[in-house]
Amino acid sequence: MEHEKTQIERHTSKQFDVELEDVREQVLTMGGLVEQQIANGVKALIDGDSALGEDVARSDYKINTMEVAIDEACTKILARRQPQAGDLRLVLAIAKTITDLERIGDEAEKIGRMAVHLAGKDRPPSAFRQISQLGGHVRQMVRDSLDAFARMDTEAALAVAQHDAEVDREYEGVMRQCITFMMEDPRTIKHMLDVMWSVKALERIGDHATNISEYVVYLVGGRDVRHLSIEELEKEAARAISPRTGQ
Amino acid sequence: MEHEKTQIERHTSKQFDVELEDVREQVLTMGGLVEQQIANGVKALIDGDSALGEDVARSDYKINTMEVAIDEACTKILARRQPQAGDLRLVLAIAKTITDLERIGDEAEKIGRMAVHLAGKDRPPSAFRQISQLGGHVRQMVRDSLDAFARMDTEAALAVAQHDAEVDREYEGVMRQCITFMMEDPRTIKHMLDVMWSVKALERIGDHATNISEYVVYLVGGRDVRHLSIEELEKEAARAISPRTGQ
Repeated sequence: MEHEKTQIERHTSKQFDVELEDVREQVLTMGGLVEQQIANGVKALIDGDSALGEDVARSDYKINTMEVAIDEACTKILARRQPQAGDLRLVLAIAKTITDLERIGDEAEKIGRMAVHLAGKDRPPSAFRQISQLGGHVRQMVRDSLDAFARMDTEAALAVAQHDAEVDREYEGVMRQCITFMMEDPRTIKHMLDVMWSVKALERIGDHATNISEYVVYLVGGRDVRHLSIEELEKEAARAISPRTGQ
Repeated sequence: MEHEKTQIERHTSKQFDVELEDVREQVLTMGGLVEQQIANGVKALIDGDSALGEDVARSDYKINTMEVAIDEACTKILARRQPQAGDLRLVLAIAKTITDLERIGDEAEKIGRMAVHLAGKDRPPSAFRQISQLGGHVRQMVRDSLDAFARMDTEAALAVAQHDAEVDREYEGVMRQCITFMMEDPRTIKHMLDVMWSVKALERIGDHATNISEYVVYLVGGRDVRHLSIEELEKEAARAISPRTGQ
């Protein structure tokens, strides 16, 4: 009996690992789709490509479907496996991560819609060059936060949070430029506002990527680091890393 | 032995009920604070009261602290009690609800900051009357979603989602008015943009209240209703209610 039970336990634990690994992979697949949506949304905006913009707006349902499926998988794991400690934190971090990924998808959808609105309009090249840059940086933040998540790498996660401050500065720069255009030619107000909503959406995506990277620090360090300053985050990451480097 | 086990189970279950009830009450307290922040933020904006605006911006940390505490309580319940079915769904819905409440707090903080910026500026009375109305409706949505949560009332939750469509229409109206002001007097562009960011924040608060009400439908009905249309939500709510009315 004793022997049998151990076997079953081992089997259960292995099956559990398979399930967890499967969910983690689903999160990364979802993340890949979200990244693609950001890239396409920004491309549609910059190129004035309304067909691509429409495609982005129409594709958001795929991300929503993945969120619901992964959320269900997490609930099932919690009910059946009753994970403890690190495993429990992982499942909860996944549940939070997919909420942020889904909201990033919503922002990409908005950018897609704005791209459709703006497709026929004049576009100030300098502002659009800046938006293209900002879009690239924000997409990188999403990728880095997911990489940090995949490798459970708190240092990489911390780098994302630091990157967010730069992105915010770029965002402020683009916004100032948009305001200047509006003031110089008030006839552009309406369509510059559409540009500004898109830029705002990019900034929000950066915030969501930061949230994801904070879940990674929480996951590895076991302490909730949301609402900490960059300095406090650094300390926390050092604390989370030190047991490993100390070995 | 049999008798003793039942006693312990009963005791455990009772203790569990106390813990769950405690967390639920904490959520409602957090919700009350969030509502107050919205009310104060909008009041500061309308009255041009920079002291009140600053107070709102400074008070956001209280909401953040509550989020972290409730999240920890949820994790502990999951680890210790390993809840099943409805109890598990309740804990997960609470974890999601407080994320939305925290983000509502962030939006209220932004409104507080904008109120400080705008304190000395001219304010077009008609737009500010509309903003005051919109603020009232959005706050009502938050209250209703929390009431629906407290009473596990899917019909009330559904009403919140329906209300969101109205709020979106009001939002569009205020935005159009702001654009008209800007176009009529381009010198107002900068401060009208601050007004628009505040209005945008109110619209987002409505979205978060809708999210909370969707968790309630999920909680009662056991099916994920995010990303459904209003019509589909109505069907789902009817399905969730029918077992009770059929008794």
